[in-house]
Amino acid sequence: MSSVPTTVSSVPKATVALADGRALTYFGAIPKRPADYPDRRQLPATGVQSEERWDSLLSEWVVIASHRQDRTFQPAADACPLCPSSAGSLTEIPAPEYEVVVFENRFPTLATPAPPAQSAVARSNDDRTGQPGLLASRPGAGRCEVICFSQDHSASFAGLSADQAATVMAAWVDRSVELARVPGVEQVYCFENRGAEIGATLAHPHGQIYAYPSITPRTERMLAACASYRRDTGRGLFDDLLAAEQAAGSRIVLTGSHWTAFVPFAARWPYEVHLYPHRRVPDLAALPPAATTEFCELYPGLLRRFDRLFDAPAPYVSAWHQAPVRHRDGDFALHLELFTVRRAPGKLKYLAGTESGMGAFANDITPEAAASRLRAMRE
Amino acid sequence: MSSVPTTVSSVPKATVALADGRALTYFGAIPKRPADYPDRRQLPATGVQSEERWDSLLSEWVVIASHRQDRTFQPAADACPLCPSSAGSLTEIPAPEYEVVVFENRFPTLATPAPPAQSAVARSNDDRTGQPGLLASRPGAGRCEVICFSQDHSASFAGLSADQAATVMAAWVDRSVELARVPGVEQVYCFENRGAEIGATLAHPHGQIYAYPSITPRTERMLAACASYRRDTGRGLFDDLLAAEQAAGSRIVLTGSHWTAFVPFAARWPYEVHLYPHRRVPDLAALPPAATTEFCELYPGLLRRFDRLFDAPAPYVSAWHQAPVRHRDGDFALHLELFTVRRAPGKLKYLAGTESGMGAFANDITPEAAASRLRAMRE
Repeated sequence: MSSVPTTVSSVPKATVALADGRALTYFGAIPKRPADYPDRRQLPATGVQSEERWDSLLSEWVVIASHRQDRTFQPAADACPLCPSSAGSLTEIPAPEYEVVVFENRFPTLATPAPPAQSAVARSNDDRTGQPGLLASRPGAGRCEVICFSQDHSASFAGLSADQAATVMAAWVDRSVELARVPGVEQVYCFENRGAEIGATLAHPHGQIYAYPSITPRTERMLAACASYRRDTGRGLFDDLLAAEQAAGSRIVLTGSHWTAFVPFAARWPYEVHLYPHRRVPDLAALPPAATTEFCELYPGLLRRFDRLFDAPAPYVSAWHQAPVRHRDGDFALHLELFTVRRAPGKLKYLAGTESGMGAFANDITPEAAASRLRAMRE
Repeated sequence: MSSVPTTVSSVPKATVALADGRALTYFGAIPKRPADYPDRRQLPATGVQSEERWDSLLSEWVVIASHRQDRTFQPAADACPLCPSSAGSLTEIPAPEYEVVVFENRFPTLATPAPPAQSAVARSNDDRTGQPGLLASRPGAGRCEVICFSQDHSASFAGLSADQAATVMAAWVDRSVELARVPGVEQVYCFENRGAEIGATLAHPHGQIYAYPSITPRTERMLAACASYRRDTGRGLFDDLLAAEQAAGSRIVLTGSHWTAFVPFAARWPYEVHLYPHRRVPDLAALPPAATTEFCELYPGLLRRFDRLFDAPAPYVSAWHQAPVRHRDGDFALHLELFTVRRAPGKLKYLAGTESGMGAFANDITPEAAASRLRAMRE
């Protein structure tokens, strides 16, 4: 299942080293000769102090990444570190033009290199329980990469052509496969935070790729739900969920030959859409070429519907949920979860007391009403 | 354990009915004759359409409360619904003055009355598993109340005297005890969302009280951690956590005779403080009078430290974690969790891709540095 589809693997790529040693990979036809464009900056190595700490009350790891407090914050457009370099401005991307580029984050939440997680945890385990002890910590192993969707500072994913989206898809597949091979990495997560309202610190169209040293809390819960459902019914939870949404119909936003987009029955956010391939696969690398091709046509259109909801660029989080590295053969199904925090013109949905304190979500908009509005939007 | 301490039960209270039938309770010495101030508004009953829906992937209930979309949003100060009524302005509080007041939210997330949760769930259970089925829902039973901390629109909890705070405490205890008696209520949650940055829609100093029909996801996880820790060690998790923090010392913010405030070892937020009583009790009603008295002195001072962090009113969530109604005899310990989303002047912490998508928190400030700064703040 791990073979890379032809449509994606045929995209050219070339990797170079930045001034401080971080890797940068160009995807697509430009630049033609990446080696012609060395990183000419004087860039001191960044001190990375990333640590995972065990929260005994919630049984979750929390990352403490103190070096990130000084990261680049909403710079002026002419100082954007994600634009191509030019004579007057040296950026993170040395070349004067590019299609799609991926590089290691200069201010990563999770740092590389790091020792294997297992030995580090063992040091702080509580001998009596085998669980991490009360004040257990370990290095924040893993990797954080930045992916630029376009060299055009004012572009957005919603405006990408299907061909451009296919180059992004090729980069996502490549990084998911490569990062899954890094020792200690348990899960690879491709996502986009779009808009200052949701905390994006750079306006240039870009996403992020996290390689986690352990399975994340939400994924753990999904795996547990899949296992429980399989045990109780002998069936796949994701398969039955998609079938139930297709049968209900009232929350469907759009249906293609290979994908269905719907507002989930128990949506947490004002406008939230989940995009499922019709045939279950564990991750991006396992998507059939035809599904990849259709995704590249459907997804930018879905984002344009979000932008039209309130006639303004939607602040959103778009998240690829892939099976963890060691769970590719189970019931976990690749899907994309997209939501905006805007609930009305000028009004955002906040995670306040009930959500942040208790984990109990309240949503003011019925999923059926949200789906109906999204269906009515032209792309 | 459920007896109400004298210091708190001696606070006078009087309950009246608002124009649409909702209950309102005055706490404290004023108004002297609440019956003299009937609600003179013409107030149509609000249609409440609250529903809980089962998220099969995360095994959590989500509340869909579609009637809340039109709730009052950041009104001008002279239209504040939480100020006392005056000749020219009829508000939610009919009297011309009050100390502390609690009333049912006109736009509740959880609605009352509702049928007992159990029978409602049964209707949508999956016969094969006993779990709620794929698209299971039930009425959003429970209750949501608003608590006004002061009649002064420009006041804040940080500025309350110990006596004023004691009246608030009396109201919290009263409502926690009363709401725990409502059939179907499993958990009572007193909290404050303060500041527009965190989503508070009204500036008047106030908090909220939720009575949930089921144990919330975060509390479920804490209960599971307590049970697991008890099984493995024979000890109480909360007791050992407090002892470990006291022994470490580096994250302590302040210590009284009855309370210790510390930044938790695995803090999720830039500035986060947990306040534990030294003697474990399940809930507010079980606090000894001396601990209640000291809390009323310590807590406003702690809030003032938060306001001084960036020389601006801190946007914060302050959350009382009480043992669920049917878990008062276990290891769960009453404590308060306080955090601000402000990480630097003009910069907020957002829950974006890694937190919202994966539940994996990343914090840019070390808990030790946060504790050190908070210790250095004068009150």
